[in-house]
Order: sequence, then structure tokens, then C-alpha cells
Amino acid sequence: MKTRGSIQTISFIGSGNVATHLAAALQKAGHRIVEVFSPNIGNAKQFAEQFGCLALNSLQNLNTKVDLLIIAVPDAKVEAVAKAIHQLKGIVAHTSGIIPMSVLEGTRNYGVFYPLQTFTKDRKLNISDAPFCIEGSSEEVEEKLSELAGKISHSVQFVNSEQRKHLHLAAVMVSNFVNHLYGISHDFMESKQLDFDLLLPLIRETAAKVQDISPEKAQTGPARRNDEQTLKSHLKMLKNSPENEELYRLFSEQIKKKYNE
Amino acid sequence: MKTRGSIQTISFIGSGNVATHLAAALQKAGHRIVEVFSPNIGNAKQFAEQFGCLALNSLQNLNTKVDLLIIAVPDAKVEAVAKAIHQLKGIVAHTSGIIPMSVLEGTRNYGVFYPLQTFTKDRKLNISDAPFCIEGSSEEVEEKLSELAGKISHSVQFVNSEQRKHLHLAAVMVSNFVNHLYGISHDFMESKQLDFDLLLPLIRETAAKVQDISPEKAQTGPARRNDEQTLKSHLKMLKNSPENEELYRLFSEQIKKKYNE
Repeated sequence: MKTRGSIQTISFIGSGNVATHLAAALQKAGHRIVEVFSPNIGNAKQFAEQFGCLALNSLQNLNTKVDLLIIAVPDAKVEAVAKAIHQLKGIVAHTSGIIPMSVLEGTRNYGVFYPLQTFTKDRKLNISDAPFCIEGSSEEVEEKLSELAGKISHSVQFVNSEQRKHLHLAAVMVSNFVNHLYGISHDFMESKQLDFDLLLPLIRETAAKVQDISPEKAQTGPARRNDEQTLKSHLKMLKNSPENEELYRLFSEQIKKKYNE
Repeated sequence: MKTRGSIQTISFIGSGNVATHLAAALQKAGHRIVEVFSPNIGNAKQFAEQFGCLALNSLQNLNTKVDLLIIAVPDAKVEAVAKAIHQLKGIVAHTSGIIPMSVLEGTRNYGVFYPLQTFTKDRKLNISDAPFCIEGSSEEVEEKLSELAGKISHSVQFVNSEQRKHLHLAAVMVSNFVNHLYGISHDFMESKQLDFDLLLPLIRETAAKVQDISPEKAQTGPARRNDEQTLKSHLKMLKNSPENEELYRLFSEQIKKKYNE
């Protein structure tokens, strides 16, 4: 069975950060949000109120006539959800970076609608900046999903499941790990009665630099210039926090090796 | 001997990124750049041409009547430079994050003029955003240096040598180490025929988030939510690059420990 026309009506499984940001952008672009399912009916109701849709806490009651059902649940739950839903008239797509499209094979028309961005509750986000990584069970599904993505973002990419999982890993490194370095520095600064805000311009400029030049060209610092005296002095400051010391040692060794050998 | 009036005339020891960015900002703010010393006379001449000043390759010939001599050389060389210069009428200040002010004790009026920012050659930078960390051998020196910093930046802080070295360490983590993560991801993406530019909006948003909320609140990702399946899958993708695998393991363990115990 073929799907016809563009996507108009959309339902969500999941009411978390990704679902909320997507629903807001899609509704603003003129699409109708029909239903939302969450195992926590309170969360579903809150989402439903925000987008004027129905709240469900049973997958059995899902309206199967929507054009698109977006599964935006934690990665570990995508497969179980996929198995629990009925056949749909439209497309079923998940939003996960790491889960292969093939977990949706039990459905008729399926795909992936993965926004490569970090979503935080109660934080406004310019979703039009986020690259949407699209994959589809057929060319027609890919076309429809990319047409939809193009309405809310200026960056739409076709990315297969194998590439997507590598992309997701790289995303974890430049976002989750980078944020952990911010967190370590935050705690370290606090422990020395220093204001973390002093680092904010540096954090901005470090991210801004690689928008224009390669990270290799942008690399600076004591390890980059093989400044053993400073490296020793820093390690000495960290001798009471073995975890940070280990991390410092690992980064410095890797940077020295990459640039000075 | 006391120094009198505001700082008008400025010379530089060092003609690298920091010296060049500072000279540009200070000249624009109406100060006269008098001389520049570099052991490499070619570099000194290039700097001199840019700022209409004299180029020197001997410290013995430095004009001792300038209001401020800025030592902007690699950290490891600050002390040797300090020992080699003659007594000055004005102030001698270095720009290092890690070197204590006390290495300048042989001079009469001295201090630190440390801009907390990452400087890259041929890259325009809004230096008015950079926090300037000021320390002085006397209240008068501190006043003069902070007045000067206030002309080129809207953020001026008094930071003593002990605090400054901690600040410098934190700066290395949020800038040099963060950039190394960008570099690792860049190389990883290239090895999978993926365009690094796909990550740029995520890099921007990750840096933007901590401008508004704490890194702790901003933390997301598989380690944060204890998603063992994704962590295993990522580690498997890295099994051919032991260095990245070690780094991935260390970050994930630290994040899990911090947020899930």
C-alpha cells in the first residue's frame, strides 16, 4: 500500500524533550498534532494541552490514520514500541541516532527522522539550524520525510543507519563529553572560589573557531606546544582529584602525540 | 619611584598571537605602540610595520621610558625575559596565565595583564569580550592596568597569582581539551566519509547552553541516562582506535558516576 500526498497529520509516541521541540516546530509549520502517547498519562496530558491534541496511555488506542507517527522515546525503548504498535496508514519514523531503521521493519512504511542537536527541557532552540538526518524504507518515504524536515530546518541530509550511528557517536563526543569538561571546570572553579562565568567567553570562542577553521588549526595550549613545565604545574594542581588528573594526563598525552611527533 | 598618569606609550616583548591582538586593540583605543622585540627580527619587523613602531632584536636597546612594557612570550620564557630587561620608568607586565607575578620582582613596578581567551593567528576576535585578569605590585599599578584593560574590554577582574593558575588550568580544559574532542570527532567523521560540518550546529548549541544554565543541568547523552546498550554499541565502533576507546570509557564512567550514583 502506498502513502499519498504530503504529510499533514502527525502523532507522537513519547512526550519528552525531542517530541516537544519537534511538535512545536511542526505545528508552527502548519501541521496538525493529533495524538500523543506516554506511559505516564500526566506527561501525555501536559503535552496534549500544549499542542491541542489527544493524550493516550495505551498504544492500542492509537489513531492509525495519521500521515506520520513519530517515535521519540529513549533509544533503548524504540524496538519495544515498534513491536507494540498496529499497522498504520501512514509512515512510522523514529528519532534515534543509534537505532537502525530496521527495527521498524514490521510496519509498512517506515523511516528515520533524526535531528542532530541537543535538546533541553524549557530551553528555546532554533531547530531550523539542526541537520535532519533522513532515512526511509522507500524513496517515497524518504521524499516525504525530507519534505517535512525541510519545512522546519534548512539542513536535510540522507544518512543511512550505518553512517547515522557513527554520526551519533561523534555527536556524543562534541556535545556530551564537551559538556562534561565544562562541568569538571565548573566544579573545579567553584572549589577555588572562582566564578565559572569567567570562562564563558572562552567557551564561546572555542566553539566559534571551528565553525571557520579546522580543529587541527585551532588547537592551542601547553600540550600543543610541548610546554612540559606548565603540564607539570597543572598536574600538581590536580593531585587531590585523581579523576581529573587522569583525564588531564590522557588529553595532554594525546595532544602531544598528535601534534609534536 | 612612582609612575604618574595613565598609560599612554606601550612596547611589546613578543610578536605572536597575544601580542598582535593586544597591540591592535590598544592602538585602536588610542595608545601608541613604541617598540617590539622578537628574537626573530623578521617577526619583529612584520609586527612593527603593522603598528608603525620600531623593531628590535636586542633587549639591551629597549626604550626604558615607555609607560608599559608587555611581555607576551611563551610561558616558559617569561622568567628569562624578566631577568634580561633593564629597569623601566613605567610598568612591566606579563600576559601569562600560569606564571606568578613574582618572576617580575626584579623590576620596579610590575603586574599581570592576562586576557582569558584563545588567540589564533589571522583570526579576528572580539577582544572586548575577554575577561582581563589583573594583578599589580601596588595598588597604583593595579589601577593603571585595570584602567587600560577597561579601554579594550568590558570585563576586568582582579585575580591573584594563585587564583590565576587555577583559572588557567580550567581554561585549558574548556578550550584546549574541548578543541581536541572536536579534532577527534573531525578525524572520526572523515574516516567514515561524513562531513564534520554536520556537527557544527550541535557544537554551537552545546557551548550556548552553558551560557544560560549550569553544565550539570545541561548534561545529556547515553552515559547521563545510564543507557548501557548505547554505550556498548559506541565502544564497539571504537574498537579499532584504542586511544578514542580509552577516552570514551573514561568520560562515560565519570559521567555515570557523577549523575547516577
